[in-house]
Amino acid sequence: MPESPQERIPAAQVRRFLATALERVGMPADDAGTVAELMTEAEVQGSDGHGVIRLVPYCKRIRSGGLNLKPDIRIVKEKAGMALLDGDNAQGHLVMKKAAEIAIAKARNCGVAWVGAYHSNHAGPASLYARMALEHDMIGMYYAVGNANHLPPWGGLSMLLSTNPIAVAVPAGEEPPVVLDMATTVAAYGKVKAKAQRGEQMPEGWMIDRTGQPLTDPKRADEGFLLPIGGYKGYGLSLIVGLLAGTLNGAAMGTKVIDFNADYRTTTNTGQAICVIDPDAFGEIAEFKQRVDKLVREIRASELMPGFDRVWLPGEQSHLKKQVNEREGLALPASLRTQLDAFAREIGIPLLQDA
Amino acid sequence: MPESPQERIPAAQVRRFLATALERVGMPADDAGTVAELMTEAEVQGSDGHGVIRLVPYCKRIRSGGLNLKPDIRIVKEKAGMALLDGDNAQGHLVMKKAAEIAIAKARNCGVAWVGAYHSNHAGPASLYARMALEHDMIGMYYAVGNANHLPPWGGLSMLLSTNPIAVAVPAGEEPPVVLDMATTVAAYGKVKAKAQRGEQMPEGWMIDRTGQPLTDPKRADEGFLLPIGGYKGYGLSLIVGLLAGTLNGAAMGTKVIDFNADYRTTTNTGQAICVIDPDAFGEIAEFKQRVDKLVREIRASELMPGFDRVWLPGEQSHLKKQVNEREGLALPASLRTQLDAFAREIGIPLLQDA
Repeated sequence: MPESPQERIPAAQVRRFLATALERVGMPADDAGTVAELMTEAEVQGSDGHGVIRLVPYCKRIRSGGLNLKPDIRIVKEKAGMALLDGDNAQGHLVMKKAAEIAIAKARNCGVAWVGAYHSNHAGPASLYARMALEHDMIGMYYAVGNANHLPPWGGLSMLLSTNPIAVAVPAGEEPPVVLDMATTVAAYGKVKAKAQRGEQMPEGWMIDRTGQPLTDPKRADEGFLLPIGGYKGYGLSLIVGLLAGTLNGAAMGTKVIDFNADYRTTTNTGQAICVIDPDAFGEIAEFKQRVDKLVREIRASELMPGFDRVWLPGEQSHLKKQVNEREGLALPASLRTQLDAFAREIGIPLLQDA
Repeated sequence: MPESPQERIPAAQVRRFLATALERVGMPADDAGTVAELMTEAEVQGSDGHGVIRLVPYCKRIRSGGLNLKPDIRIVKEKAGMALLDGDNAQGHLVMKKAAEIAIAKARNCGVAWVGAYHSNHAGPASLYARMALEHDMIGMYYAVGNANHLPPWGGLSMLLSTNPIAVAVPAGEEPPVVLDMATTVAAYGKVKAKAQRGEQMPEGWMIDRTGQPLTDPKRADEGFLLPIGGYKGYGLSLIVGLLAGTLNGAAMGTKVIDFNADYRTTTNTGQAICVIDPDAFGEIAEFKQRVDKLVREIRASELMPGFDRVWLPGEQSHLKKQVNEREGLALPASLRTQLDAFAREIGIPLLQDA
């Protein structure tokens, strides 16, 4: 049975709680504030698999000595349109926020910019960083190496690839921005875990077992692997994202990827990359946004297939969730609330309800 | 029944034939040589749906007055890391070859470059242009708006999207380069046409009809549409590619896309884009190539799933076809040979066998 949500909690209160927890386990106050802000933003936009639920594992890594709390995140290579960052094993949010800021500034000069990072860590949902370009009327693209290998190459059994996500955010005029945020697998691993938690079966097509047969029991997930989208195409896409976000930057790929849910001590050497395009370099920005609006409206006005009551644009559902969550607060599942309360008592900070 | 191939013909002879035909229908000799060279290269690398088979439709467009034979392909917007090209309704190969050359030169200075085009036309397989970066030890990425809409948005019935392909080429050291070239649909439309020609059924998952049911008879293809990879994810990916390659450049998208197999006169205003990254900006190029080699070998050494006899890297099959085709010549299907012979007689040039 799906859990019934608890009463809603204002986003600002959630952010305070997260910041207090991160600071309590040793993160400097400024950094804790930044990470808490981005984790809350992830939750607000509906990326609940990459938001508040990550607090306890993030803190476990910090308390296990697996994260550098005094990092020197710095540019080690630079040209007019690119930079390579050494994340110095910092929390990924800090590394990729800096990467996005650098990419936006460089794109303003060059028209396009690409910033890669190594020695980074999990940074939350991919769209968080692609979206940072939007407030500058720019297009953001984000690529990341996932933090655990759940995918073999096509035709193989060795777990050498991850769900390596792609996010792209394109500004519109009056319409919500078009924001794609997708794993290169049919289902993200978090969705499998959620099915297991709720005692539900998975549909065919999410996972296969080691003989290539469909695997539908999420409790047997470790006997099989996720299926890439479009079969061999998604395998290729996952590999390419890994080459761009990992190998290019000297970050972990293939056998070097640490399973961050099993090993909280070893440096993950996570690789991520952001590419920003300034549409203003291509012509009047207002005209570009009008063209995006027009296309969005054409798509929304599509004749419907029987059984569908509307056509969604990528990012539109997230946009609506964001509006509701900002207005009414965040509805965290009861099991997560219980976990957060226990964790708050363990580290000696006020409960979320009192934050 | 699949056709038995004819005797093989040297690639240089195919190229001469293509150049003569294009020149005969009015293309200036230099341009005809360039287009013939790239069409042959497409055929040599195994992209047979985008190679020699396109000669007759390309010439039909030229003879219908739908292509500009004296184009002024020029940069209309430029910054250090980007350019926007007006293709002036030239053959797409001419536009995108120029775009790739500009992107490579700019990437050398900036580390990354993005060149978009509008008023272009069909340019052959996406990987042809992504691959141009390889000989400069750079990474090439190519995005294009397909030249006919075969895809509705997810949940819709209106044909507003195309197979919008993505290609990415990554240089390796001793290993063949990793080259992904994929439509954002499960099957490219050319594969459906090939099934129809051979009297074969399509597997479930390639197309659905207007009620959402699987469509497996390729002769009924116009009663349904292609399925995007990963369902709504592939729809999102196709839209994003269209925004980047089309809308950003002021090229056709959505209802503006001309079906180039039905209309040979109207300017297509095709949009394409190429992005080039110079890995040398990120560190020693030799070290990058070694890392790619290492990853390629890890993947190739994967334990195999029952029923598979090896794991392929993206672009590896194409690489092997290229070696065979360069050594032994091109094996064109009998029906294509017949069509080319008839066309040669029609326009009054020597047959392929005498070229």
